[in-house]
Amino acid sequence: MTCDQTIFPLDQCSRPFFLGVDVGGTNIKMGLVDDQGRTFGFESIDTEEPKGPLAAMERVGQTVELMLRGLGLRNTDIARVGLGTPGSQNIQKGMLLHPPNHPHWWDFPIVATLEKILGLPVSFVNDANAAAFGEFWIGKGEKFSSMAMLTLGTGVGGGIITDSHLVVGENSFGAECGHMIVDSAPNARLCTWGGGKGHLEAYASASAIVAIAKERLAKGASSILSSNQEQVTARRIYEAATQGDAFALQIIDETAFYLGVGITSLVHIVDPGLVVLGGAMNFGGRQSPIGVRFLERIRSTFLELAFDSVTAGTTIDFAILGGDAGFLGAAGIARQTFHRTVPS
Amino acid sequence: MTCDQTIFPLDQCSRPFFLGVDVGGTNIKMGLVDDQGRTFGFESIDTEEPKGPLAAMERVGQTVELMLRGLGLRNTDIARVGLGTPGSQNIQKGMLLHPPNHPHWWDFPIVATLEKILGLPVSFVNDANAAAFGEFWIGKGEKFSSMAMLTLGTGVGGGIITDSHLVVGENSFGAECGHMIVDSAPNARLCTWGGGKGHLEAYASASAIVAIAKERLAKGASSILSSNQEQVTARRIYEAATQGDAFALQIIDETAFYLGVGITSLVHIVDPGLVVLGGAMNFGGRQSPIGVRFLERIRSTFLELAFDSVTAGTTIDFAILGGDAGFLGAAGIARQTFHRTVPS
Repeated sequence: MTCDQTIFPLDQCSRPFFLGVDVGGTNIKMGLVDDQGRTFGFESIDTEEPKGPLAAMERVGQTVELMLRGLGLRNTDIARVGLGTPGSQNIQKGMLLHPPNHPHWWDFPIVATLEKILGLPVSFVNDANAAAFGEFWIGKGEKFSSMAMLTLGTGVGGGIITDSHLVVGENSFGAECGHMIVDSAPNARLCTWGGGKGHLEAYASASAIVAIAKERLAKGASSILSSNQEQVTARRIYEAATQGDAFALQIIDETAFYLGVGITSLVHIVDPGLVVLGGAMNFGGRQSPIGVRFLERIRSTFLELAFDSVTAGTTIDFAILGGDAGFLGAAGIARQTFHRTVPS
Repeated sequence: MTCDQTIFPLDQCSRPFFLGVDVGGTNIKMGLVDDQGRTFGFESIDTEEPKGPLAAMERVGQTVELMLRGLGLRNTDIARVGLGTPGSQNIQKGMLLHPPNHPHWWDFPIVATLEKILGLPVSFVNDANAAAFGEFWIGKGEKFSSMAMLTLGTGVGGGIITDSHLVVGENSFGAECGHMIVDSAPNARLCTWGGGKGHLEAYASASAIVAIAKERLAKGASSILSSNQEQVTARRIYEAATQGDAFALQIIDETAFYLGVGITSLVHIVDPGLVVLGGAMNFGGRQSPIGVRFLERIRSTFLELAFDSVTAGTTIDFAILGGDAGFLGAAGIARQTFHRTVPS
């Protein structure tokens, strides 16, 4: 697995370095990032979830040691490490709690473990929050002091920065934006996990639009997707839409509507100035007429539902860092902690 | 106008002092508060809105001077001033923009003006945010690191503190919680100002419940309020409910439902740990069976709609500081700025 960032030569670095570690379900990405957010080294290893978090952190340690050696650096060249993992977590205590896709990693003191292995201080962050912070630091949000990011994938994740301060929350649940209420009707769709109904994630995630499409196809809706109902994916809905399929376009428009509803609540609550959409479910993003239409429908719903004075000061757009946002943001959180505690 | 805080004798103070100034539509309250949040002096003057902000700030200066002289103090005993005013504002620039109930105060550099008059540095804050910060500092929220407050009055205001950090926002609009979307249906109620529809304020403010009650009474709904439809107020709806009026109870229950919807979104977005309800529309609060029922209905909606793991870590309750929260919170914001810039 490679990264999309330019790997700068070492003589251009602005010290100190920060190490960003982004733990995902499949891969663990490690990036060596300087004080300006430029990447000087990158490695990726398999997560090997069933082998547990201790084995994974030990392999992170070995990989980082090799990366540093290859660059002629030592771990003392790194001022601080940022570690992003999926929730649930106790950020204050540095504990993994019950990440649903990491069943062998539950109730594990991952921060203390990684600190011991690397011999460096570690800042801990939720993976979606890390991605948001990456976009805030050196991505779409770099000119803003506040920003929110919605990550559209299997579920809907989020991250919020207010006045340069990442929202973590009293229970480390901050920015679970997928669980805003976008439909308060008695027959609202149920959330797929954790209880509740009417949540954004039940309307605007990949799993939600697949479920909605299948329900309607089973009832006889007409679409080029009808012939292979069991194989419907968010990707196929997007492809059908690019071919002008009205059924698929309708589903994407409805997704945009509910995102517009959620973003209206989000913007009135935290006034982020910028809302970026990240994650795989972007319907082709800026490069596709469907992605552009998707974004425009989100904006038009927001314009219809929100205050005029609020809409005037708010930008909604796609994120730009892609899969690198996580390790960059983890490094950025480490950097922010470092500069707050060690004046430069 | 008096305050409900105990006025402590000067020999018990924990220096330095902070001055909290809370500008309202009718009164301007000034409180001299020490480093522990105890009040040592309090004065209130009429706002006299039509005379404009310069005249008002000059009278604030004269009143503070007299208050200090009476206590044997000088303005150099005050480390910093906190000024809370209604929005809209540009917090960063210290400007009043277009506060709707202060038409003679528009586009005024109120922070620079007050700094010059008092000869002291001034921190600027939205009035609803100040009230929330007061509750956070020395009210219901003093044991929390994050908190949200909804202020239920003519409209629905709000304030959010995440990890001890007040959410101000990119456009100084932070925590306009009254404008979360709680109804995304096409026939949702319109917001009474600023555009948009389906907002919490259109369902759960005093003006909203009066409008809803009048609409239903005009259509022939049965209630002890029917005989005097034009005189319906939130207070009268509460009084009718205390007499067992099913119509009034239904309206209060619906208000609680929509607050539960809004609080569910709010809690998933910022994970405040504590949500407090302030403002005049509390249906008697803890002292009344109607207030207790109101709070329980809000909680039961939240329990139904939110994640189990989120509800377990979230408290919803009434605020406790009443009308003093504003000047106390303004002083608290000044104190926080002081301690961040001048290490003790």
